[in-house]
Amino acid sequence: MQASSRQCRWASLPSPSAREAASMYGTAVAIFLVILVAVLQGLAPPEHPLPYRIPLDPEGNLELSWNVSYGQEVVHFQLLVRRLEAGVLFGMSDRGELVDADLVVLWTDGDTAYFADAWSDQKGQVHLDPQQDYQLLWAQKTPEGLSLLFKRPFGTCDPKDYLIEDGTVHLVYGILEKPFQSLEAINTSDLKTGLQRVQLLKPDIPIPAMPSDTRTMEIRAPNVLIPGQETTYWCYITELPHGFSRHHIVMYEPIITEGNEALVHHMEVFQCALEFETVPHFNGPCDSKMKPERLNHCRHVLAAWALGAKAFYYPEEAGLPFGGTGSSRFLRLEVHYHNPLKIQGRHDSSGIRLYYTATPRRFNAGIMELGLVYTPVMAIPPRETAFVLTGYCTDKCTQLALPSSGIHIFASQLHTHLTGRKVVTVLARDGREAEIVNRDNHYSPHFQEIRMLKKIVSVHPGDVLITSCTYNTEDRELATVGGFGILEEMCVNYVHYYPQTQLELCKSAVDAGFLQKYFHLLNRFNSEDVCTCPQASVPQQFASVPWNSFSRRVLEALYGFVPISVHCNKSSAVRFQGEWELQPLPKIISTLEEPTPQCPASRGPSPTGLTVVSISGGKG
Amino acid sequence: MQASSRQCRWASLPSPSAREAASMYGTAVAIFLVILVAVLQGLAPPEHPLPYRIPLDPEGNLELSWNVSYGQEVVHFQLLVRRLEAGVLFGMSDRGELVDADLVVLWTDGDTAYFADAWSDQKGQVHLDPQQDYQLLWAQKTPEGLSLLFKRPFGTCDPKDYLIEDGTVHLVYGILEKPFQSLEAINTSDLKTGLQRVQLLKPDIPIPAMPSDTRTMEIRAPNVLIPGQETTYWCYITELPHGFSRHHIVMYEPIITEGNEALVHHMEVFQCALEFETVPHFNGPCDSKMKPERLNHCRHVLAAWALGAKAFYYPEEAGLPFGGTGSSRFLRLEVHYHNPLKIQGRHDSSGIRLYYTATPRRFNAGIMELGLVYTPVMAIPPRETAFVLTGYCTDKCTQLALPSSGIHIFASQLHTHLTGRKVVTVLARDGREAEIVNRDNHYSPHFQEIRMLKKIVSVHPGDVLITSCTYNTEDRELATVGGFGILEEMCVNYVHYYPQTQLELCKSAVDAGFLQKYFHLLNRFNSEDVCTCPQASVPQQFASVPWNSFSRRVLEALYGFVPISVHCNKSSAVRFQGEWELQPLPKIISTLEEPTPQCPASRGPSPTGLTVVSISGGKG
Repeated sequence: MQASSRQCRWASLPSPSAREAASMYGTAVAIFLVILVAVLQGLAPPEHPLPYRIPLDPEGNLELSWNVSYGQEVVHFQLLVRRLEAGVLFGMSDRGELVDADLVVLWTDGDTAYFADAWSDQKGQVHLDPQQDYQLLWAQKTPEGLSLLFKRPFGTCDPKDYLIEDGTVHLVYGILEKPFQSLEAINTSDLKTGLQRVQLLKPDIPIPAMPSDTRTMEIRAPNVLIPGQETTYWCYITELPHGFSRHHIVMYEPIITEGNEALVHHMEVFQCALEFETVPHFNGPCDSKMKPERLNHCRHVLAAWALGAKAFYYPEEAGLPFGGTGSSRFLRLEVHYHNPLKIQGRHDSSGIRLYYTATPRRFNAGIMELGLVYTPVMAIPPRETAFVLTGYCTDKCTQLALPSSGIHIFASQLHTHLTGRKVVTVLARDGREAEIVNRDNHYSPHFQEIRMLKKIVSVHPGDVLITSCTYNTEDRELATVGGFGILEEMCVNYVHYYPQTQLELCKSAVDAGFLQKYFHLLNRFNSEDVCTCPQASVPQQFASVPWNSFSRRVLEALYGFVPISVHCNKSSAVRFQGEWELQPLPKIISTLEEPTPQCPASRGPSPTGLTVVSISGGKG
Repeated sequence: MQASSRQCRWASLPSPSAREAASMYGTAVAIFLVILVAVLQGLAPPEHPLPYRIPLDPEGNLELSWNVSYGQEVVHFQLLVRRLEAGVLFGMSDRGELVDADLVVLWTDGDTAYFADAWSDQKGQVHLDPQQDYQLLWAQKTPEGLSLLFKRPFGTCDPKDYLIEDGTVHLVYGILEKPFQSLEAINTSDLKTGLQRVQLLKPDIPIPAMPSDTRTMEIRAPNVLIPGQETTYWCYITELPHGFSRHHIVMYEPIITEGNEALVHHMEVFQCALEFETVPHFNGPCDSKMKPERLNHCRHVLAAWALGAKAFYYPEEAGLPFGGTGSSRFLRLEVHYHNPLKIQGRHDSSGIRLYYTATPRRFNAGIMELGLVYTPVMAIPPRETAFVLTGYCTDKCTQLALPSSGIHIFASQLHTHLTGRKVVTVLARDGREAEIVNRDNHYSPHFQEIRMLKKIVSVHPGDVLITSCTYNTEDRELATVGGFGILEEMCVNYVHYYPQTQLELCKSAVDAGFLQKYFHLLNRFNSEDVCTCPQASVPQQFASVPWNSFSRRVLEALYGFVPISVHCNKSSAVRFQGEWELQPLPKIISTLEEPTPQCPASRGPSPTGLTVVSISGGKG
């Protein structure tokens, strides 16, 4: 054993070992309980622990830590494998699938261990990537398990590779339980696999100073027995102390009960509506029949956390008002437990710790709702893979409702129901797209977190905010209409901004009269009738549309052309004064292009093989 | 001087020479009148002359020869520069522009000569290509001029590179009249440049044996004085001898008057309509006011040649009937002279030599017209960059008109008017696209040749032939409707096939009644009226359409959905028996994907620099 020497070399694929796979399997597990000593670059272990960490699998056997270097556009990953079998596979894919995935694989043929950048094809078969962009820096047996340190640029200019972008990243993993003769012998469909969603590119923003009088308040689940079922939304009502005056929340962070890190998926704290003097206490599953109806009126977000997120900081000059006479004393904590292994008997007291000050900061922070009105006139045909709906916050509304110095958006929470796949909000000024407010090209309705923006976006009177959602309705047979139901759709971006204004909601929907013209024209072009009788509701009309290339494309054309109804509201029911019906669609004369990674003009000699990792029987 | 040694090495970009550009210019021309002796691969000059040859510029200073290796998917180019100044630039681009072009450049900084694979950006600035895919094999001063031999794969997997495909290729060139300090200092907009269209990937098909009784007939311009203007279509009427009986044309080839190779752009021989007993003789420009009207009835193509084409051979079992009582004795020769330098006083007797036999081959060859009916109901909105119109030859028509053993298409001539940019005909069987009959992704209306297909396509009864044309109407302000006029459009594929059938024309157009529904629906959605009054013609109706995203997209949706009128005709006026109105569009459940080049799984060490070419003052 040569623990300190460089044991790695670039080699071509190994020829199949003479041993049979069956006999190999018996020895492989033993062989692998060893120290991996390869040090590719001769690097020492990382001096600073990587700041972000999540469990990948529900048992917490695989744990990923990472950091982000925006200067180098590189992510360093540290993968801890607590109990190593014959190997492990880790990577990224568009939506968490194990086919068409960008992977790193650590595997053995029984004799030798290898590490390589690989990819899986449409059938899940694994292939060596001709361009090795994951670079192994360090592999070490630690008391906790095998620890692998490797790095990967955001973009690799390899069309087979995943592009690491802002927003959600679907991480995937697989457990190799036996040796494989070659990389090409691995098929992801044969493995124990899983996925974990995370915001990989955390914003790199300085932490604002905390006021000297900062106090904390913990909103926690009261020793909940986590149900032994895959999905539970737990609801718990609590209240602020009587006479709790107005404060500013300046920061909040998650409190996760130790051992439950892989079970607590996301948590939100909502304030109830002021109109109710009291809200009944409740502590149980949100879908319980015992849940009081009044809890549905606790929808004003105070704080939200999702897996992988760290503390949320308000900008130094702003805080979120809570307490006092202007808002309800009642708070609802919602915890989403994700328990696919149906573990029984686990208790949990996770929650959110609010940091607040009695000395108000200069500005109140506010939350504004952008996107589409919740109305069935905005619908998605069935069997669409990427249908886009767009909602507008028009120049007329921002002109009227925003202060002349503008507002500053510092965080954003994207929201759709089950068929949402991408969400983006763009700021347009003078007819030109000027800036992305927030974009998630791998959005998942199962992973909605409040994200701090990398860069604060200022919106001035007269600006336009355009929010587009892309939906996949491949598995649906009827149109999906807009609405509150979980099988209906939404397209919303809750933007967090300051200074707070009266504008709570700036959204749009197609004009209902023009939609009726659409149903009428379909009757002229199709043999099947769309029911346009006066008593038919819009969902009924959409349900009777014969979906073909013409009805689909004309609906798209309609949404992209005809006038809209604008909701420019002080609260969900109170509009600003003005004419908001039959408004023209904002004219956009130039659009922003999606950034493409800067590919090197000339690549250096790129390693094109796989790394051989030497194995020994001793201990590090 | 080391004439026989290998003088080339891969080097990084040269640093600017100390001399000033002004003084360099004076010496550069002299420096360059020397022998280039670099032999990159140590290869000897090509043993066999490359079979295809065209002049690139109107003066014939640059001459390109090439061959095609389908096995290696490589083209060898030999560029002859008769009078070398300070360098030359050659390449390919989408439509012949010098921006966004894929280039090779031979240039000097005054001291050293370089050869490199390069590309020009949107502004025409030249950049070194990080991946060098043009490989210089040989450079030699010959008595005719400097000769460069280099090769290039069809596809390079470099996104900056042009993909060499079947169909038209736009070759571009530029003359460097002075030295440049670096490649990056060259901008194509400052150079004398030009383009030449050619079918680069000539089909590699065996030459059929000629019948022993083959005779020839020359259809030639009678010593025409080429007008000193850029574009002349010359028309000349000639006739077959009295009593010339029915023969089979088995082959034809161009006859180009020596010295006029760069002026004769294309030539066609048409047979006149049989209905006229006589056609007046004529010899003059086709647009002459003196041209008899009757010449417009000489439209049946017998032979066609365009620049870069070689002889055209009929398949061994077929010949094109001409002569005898069933066809007109009168022939029209049309020669397109392209004379951008407005050279005066040049005489020309170019034409086409027909090879024919009195012993008929087994099958008569025929010509069938596929695509769109010439009717204004098929229209392209203005300001479109890539609007697609599609014409169908339906299963019902092929079922009725084709023999049970099918027909065999061996050649094809694509045809549109001025806005055509791409044309493709696809064969579909049982609802699935099965085979490409002919495709040109860089189609130009200025380069319409009859092309032999690489592979004969058999069409069976029940098959569907789908012809799509892509148009660019960016420079037009009104809709472009279908029709015969040069400012109207066509979408036609003249397919040459055997055995001849009665089916002369198998085309379609949208049903006129549904188009009227379209104009009516626009009136319901737009504030501007489309004139749908009874006396308005379809071109007038299209002229009054307000073109916006809705009217454009609904027109596309209409053309892709509503029933068609099918022309399944024995001659342009006589339909086969049957119901041809309000026919459903053929349903296509699976489409062919465009082939993408197989990119190497792992590239060998790719040269990433430029070639230094050593220069000496002596003679080779």
